Amino acid sequence: MKLKIVIPILRPPSVQNYDEIASRFQKVTSKCTEVGITYLEKGPASIECYYDEALAVPDILNKVNEAKEEGYDAVFIDCFGDPGVRAARELVDIPVVGAGEPAMLLASLLGERFSIVSILKNIQPLIAGNAKVLGVDSKLSSVRYVNIPVLELQDEKRLLVSLQKEMIAAIEKDNAHALILGCTGMTRITDSIRSILISQGYNVPVIDPVAAAIKFLEMLVDLKLSHSKMTYMPIPEKIRYQ
Amino acid sequence: MKLKIVIPILRPPSVQNYDEIASRFQKVTSKCTEVGITYLEKGPASIECYYDEALAVPDILNKVNEAKEEGYDAVFIDCFGDPGVRAARELVDIPVVGAGEPAMLLASLLGERFSIVSILKNIQPLIAGNAKVLGVDSKLSSVRYVNIPVLELQDEKRLLVSLQKEMIAAIEKDNAHALILGCTGMTRITDSIRSILISQGYNVPVIDPVAAAIKFLEMLVDLKLSHSKMTYMPIPEKIRYQ
Amino acid sequence: MKLKIVIPILRPPSVQNYDEIASRFQKVTSKCTEVGITYLEKGPASIECYYDEALAVPDILNKVNEAKEEGYDAVFIDCFGDPGVRAARELVDIPVVGAGEPAMLLASLLGERFSIVSILKNIQPLIAGNAKVLGVDSKLSSVRYVNIPVLELQDEKRLLVSLQKEMIAAIEKDNAHALILGCTGMTRITDSIRSILISQGYNVPVIDPVAAAIKFLEMLVDLKLSHSKMTYMPIPEKIRYQ
Amino acid sequence: MKLKIVIPILRPPSVQNYDEIASRFQKVTSKCTEVGITYLEKGPASIECYYDEALAVPDILNKVNEAKEEGYDAVFIDCFGDPGVRAARELVDIPVVGAGEPAMLLASLLGERFSIVSILKNIQPLIAGNAKVLGVDSKLSSVRYVNIPVLELQDEKRLLVSLQKEMIAAIEKDNAHALILGCTGMTRITDSIRSILISQGYNVPVIDPVAAAIKFLEMLVDLKLSHSKMTYMPIPEKIRYQ
Amino acid sequence: MKLKIVIPILRPPSVQNYDEIASRFQKVTSKCTEVGITYLEKGPASIECYYDEALAVPDILNKVNEAKEEGYDAVFIDCFGDPGVRAARELVDIPVVGAGEPAMLLASLLGERFSIVSILKNIQPLIAGNAKVLGVDSKLSSVRYVNIPVLELQDEKRLLVSLQKEMIAAIEKDNAHALILGCTGMTRITDSIRSILISQGYNVPVIDPVAAAIKFLEMLVDLKLSHSKMTYMPIPEKIRYQ
Amino acid sequence: MKLKIVIPILRPPSVQNYDEIASRFQKVTSKCTEVGITYLEKGPASIECYYDEALAVPDILNKVNEAKEEGYDAVFIDCFGDPGVRAARELVDIPVVGAGEPAMLLASLLGERFSIVSILKNIQPLIAGNAKVLGVDSKLSSVRYVNIPVLELQDEKRLLVSLQKEMIAAIEKDNAHALILGCTGMTRITDSIRSILISQGYNVPVIDPVAAAIKFLEMLVDLKLSHSKMTYMPIPEKIRYQ
Repeated sequence: MKLKIVIPILRPPSVQNYDEIASRFQKVTSKCTEVGITYLEKGPASIECYYDEALAVPDILNKVNEAKEEGYDAVFIDCFGDPGVRAARELVDIPVVGAGEPAMLLASLLGERFSIVSILKNIQPLIAGNAKVLGVDSKLSSVRYVNIPVLELQDEKRLLVSLQKEMIAAIEKDNAHALILGCTGMTRITDSIRSILISQGYNVPVIDPVAAAIKFLEMLVDLKLSHSKMTYMPIPEKIRYQ
Repeated sequence: MKLKIVIPILRPPSVQNYDEIASRFQKVTSKCTEVGITYLEKGPASIECYYDEALAVPDILNKVNEAKEEGYDAVFIDCFGDPGVRAARELVDIPVVGAGEPAMLLASLLGERFSIVSILKNIQPLIAGNAKVLGVDSKLSSVRYVNIPVLELQDEKRLLVSLQKEMIAAIEKDNAHALILGCTGMTRITDSIRSILISQGYNVPVIDPVAAAIKFLEMLVDLKLSHSKMTYMPIPEKIRYQ
Repeated sequence: MKLKIVIPILRPPSVQNYDEIASRFQKVTSKCTEVGITYLEKGPASIECYYDEALAVPDILNKVNEAKEEGYDAVFIDCFGDPGVRAARELVDIPVVGAGEPAMLLASLLGERFSIVSILKNIQPLIAGNAKVLGVDSKLSSVRYVNIPVLELQDEKRLLVSLQKEMIAAIEKDNAHALILGCTGMTRITDSIRSILISQGYNVPVIDPVAAAIKFLEMLVDLKLSHSKMTYMPIPEKIRYQ
Repeated sequence: MKLKIVIPILRPPSVQNYDEIASRFQKVTSKCTEVGITYLEKGPASIECYYDEALAVPDILNKVNEAKEEGYDAVFIDCFGDPGVRAARELVDIPVVGAGEPAMLLASLLGERFSIVSILKNIQPLIAGNAKVLGVDSKLSSVRYVNIPVLELQDEKRLLVSLQKEMIAAIEKDNAHALILGCTGMTRITDSIRSILISQGYNVPVIDPVAAAIKFLEMLVDLKLSHSKMTYMPIPEKIRYQ
Repeated sequence: MKLKIVIPILRPPSVQNYDEIASRFQKVTSKCTEVGITYLEKGPASIECYYDEALAVPDILNKVNEAKEEGYDAVFIDCFGDPGVRAARELVDIPVVGAGEPAMLLASLLGERFSIVSILKNIQPLIAGNAKVLGVDSKLSSVRYVNIPVLELQDEKRLLVSLQKEMIAAIEKDNAHALILGCTGMTRITDSIRSILISQGYNVPVIDPVAAAIKFLEMLVDLKLSHSKMTYMPIPEKIRYQ
Repeated sequence: MKLKIVIPILRPPSVQNYDEIASRFQKVTSKCTEVGITYLEKGPASIECYYDEALAVPDILNKVNEAKEEGYDAVFIDCFGDPGVRAARELVDIPVVGAGEPAMLLASLLGERFSIVSILKNIQPLIAGNAKVLGVDSKLSSVRYVNIPVLELQDEKRLLVSLQKEMIAAIEKDNAHALILGCTGMTRITDSIRSILISQGYNVPVIDPVAAAIKFLEMLVDLKLSHSKMTYMPIPEKIRYQ
């Protein structure tokens, strides 16, 4: 299958070719999945609040549309806030997911309750609202945050220290039985944080939302399933200026 | 107070000057409220689905920002789907509402359960999702629709026939005790539909969401209240291309 | 419009004329609202529990009935516990609210979650039950109390010290994003407690429930709306001794 | 044990001595339960809405207080709307129930979902609200009504015809698996309606709320349990005129 | 009435005759209730997790079936986790309860919220799940545990120390207003723990789930009620090897 | 990976070798998944109620244990009622799912609301209860049934006629936007029923729960995830006779 990954931010100056990016995603795809990468031409440098999300969505939808025209089988919008996911599903028939919904559904399966540890306090209401609309809010113990902006997540040490603190608090104070990394920029440290938690005596599932999302899309394509066109109906024709 | 009304669609060709539009809103404002009107430069001709909403939001946010800079005291985003409302609240400190939330809160006060009658089936999941995030979903009996696109709502007779049918179904089948007109393009027939329902023996509140929203904003300004900056935190600085 | 304010307690000995009381309410009414005040002849000196509420209600209903006969346009029952509100709505067609429901609806609009700080622990289950019946319990973080009886609320300093403590606890421990003063006897210190919270770094909306209720009633009258007679049906005739 | 039954209406002219009334209740009490009966001196001739309930409550509370002083072990307030129950629990330490809560709890045990068939549409919101406060609203399929006022319930034939119709509708349309007679004036036909339903092929539990309430009180006394004084705290002292 | 008590574990070596066991239960039964006791031949020595429950259920169902054939009027499955209760209700028409549901319903009546204190952390998700299926999860503050295995509960002193700690935590931290002993092996210390809590200033109901369950069964038999055969339908015939 | 499929019924006489059965499952597994099949030695011929489930579970757990010892990486318990799933997760660390949970989670992703069409009315409460424990009950529109016992599902024509009727009713009457085949014995007609629905104008996702479950297990193994050992704790040692 051909999977389009829409990274819903402006291309960072540090990213010169997409092969390295693609190879990072290929680590979690099935062997026969072919990956295409795109960034936005218009939008924010990172998504950390409703405002960022709003600015990213129109170009996300352009990219989803392109993916359909290029013959992709599925689209992953690489952000935990699921920006533009619902509009995209109206636009195309192929499956589209963000990083939030698949991880929350998987966590619902794995434990009685789960917590999400995201980046900044700003994003907490958006994530909690998405859990309500998805219908799993009774399973959500808490949305915590490491208090590190997306663009500083590359400081792995700082991230791990803060993640560990918040994840243990989620377990001890909020009774979480499973944990989700609440930002796609965090997922490369999944193995490290799992090891740290286990070394501290906390053997709970830690979900990498990027990997979960990609697996969900592969599953949907395999099962010949896509979102319901009764929920995401075809778009009425009309004049629209972008 | 100065109230900015953002009509979140492209200016219709039929609208030549804004005075007439403004005078329509002045009918429901308090006498001392001064009204400013704006349409979008970019966006859709009407909002009938997630996709339309997504395309409208960036320019809505521009207009909200302008309103703040022009010294307005409050902003009404004139659409029942509440497009961009949450992002706008991050952007400014003055109160911002759409037409959906105030009407749903008012209906929660007036009756045990309420129904919304909107335009097309396409918009139903968006409205139901907004009710969940607002927290009043246990009061919502149903979201029905007249099956008339926004741009055909000017056919008043057709609208009234269909509204009457759906509103009576909401009462009889869904046990609604209060009703909301689920599109801001419908609100000029509020009095007519009330009369029709009463003549049919249905004496239930019918809420005009535009009037409700404007009254809520006047109330908030009077009470020196605005949305919580803990829910709608100030926007982090970063590069954003629009 | 003419607004009747039913203060649902025995007239305190200190209250000699109603003009001063009326002028306090006029501060929050619109200019064209005319205010009438009444106390109860039978009932408790203050409302702090289910029992007080029960004893107050019959005479509240007499006063509501009088208000209707005197030609008032709306009735405010000046207590956060909303005593007699539902029965009153059966009795009359003009809008009737207490101080609880409007404040809770407004708080639902302004923040993701809200807390109420009331007087005594005794009243907590009554308020929590009202939130359930209103349908906003999923937005209610907590009902806290200052542990000061109504009749001692005039000690402003003690009230502010305790309010500050409980409001900060509501924010820090219960994750409240908006706050409600949970007793109508507290509302004169609204500005003071707002200032104190801001000076401590907590910029959250603090809702004066009296002002909110009065604004809701003015709004309902302006919008020609009242409670649904399907929820609050006309009262069957029968013998009733009071 | 000594059980006081407060019939929360004015004594009907037809009731001349209480022995016959008492003997009706003794049919469901345990042998060693001694029954005392009282009617109200002030209040309505029947309870069919919020207003009736409000007028009945103060004298109900007098009667509950008397019962405590007379040495009763428990009090049954003989109305499905549970009038005054919460206030009464603040007033006394002995168990107090109405006819609504025990029946709803029992129905929650017996079937996946249950419906209540009460008297008039007027009482429906009151009962639905009580189910929310009790916390069993997710088990409540519907509140239906026979459309017969309390004072006409003696027409047994009419009652049975209407009950049968509504109970079968509750099963067939609302998916109820258990049924509650939603008025204490209906309970003498419990056996008849059970037979009728069985003869129509509907073998579902039909709960007599009076019998259920009395059994709950006997159980509470046997188990040395009563309502929590954390929920129903002792009443603060103050001036109260009745 | 004849009540069969199925103790859903292997007979402990210390139990030589059933008269002593029976006499313990007779303390809470009504005088005219005759008690029969049985243990399992196959199953676990105690029930502390889903796995134990699963192994106990088939022989529980044999014992329930025997009880029906022996002419018993009701069956109590003596475990707080309600093992096999739903299957048993399909198998027989006489009432069957475990120790969990009656206690949770009674607690729902007595206080605004309740907590359960059980044995081990292992059993917490099972109990919380049962509360959801019963429909009272909105009343459940927390499930705590004393961290003592069933087979060590005979150390009364250790049990009381730990119970006291967890029950006070339930009140102070989880806002519980009523408490349930969450294991049938704890119930002999009901009076002691009540005294201890009162001596510490905590006057809240503490429910013995065994006594509650037996009273519920006596009530059901008295009221000629049993579980709905629409929820627990007759079992289809087929080959089954045990 | 090695996937063990526990078919939780007695081996049907018609099944002579497992290769055919295995090949049916291989159609949905990934190429590198190796499948092992087992039936029960003790248990029912089919699972259609709580009682069947109860009898099946102990031997299911034996088979899960065997699977672990044989080095399997994951276990699928091939029944929509998820029999023994929770106990099995206590027993082993490798992922275990039934057919119910994965399908319900997938349906939650694909549409606003979903319905399940199962076999008999008997199984409806079990499935609805599982949805509550999983936490997706707010997304579940209805559980319908074709009224065909498992062992008669081979009559494909009858099954399709009844499925079509119930699925269209789920869409039209219950507002389902996605559908689940609620019995693993139905899944071979997934393509047929999809075609039929599309030919009738109903283009909604129809989920084959067997395929969904297997994909979930492959995903979990790929992602190195399994259920939380905080929810499904290790089993305490004790005597257990089976």
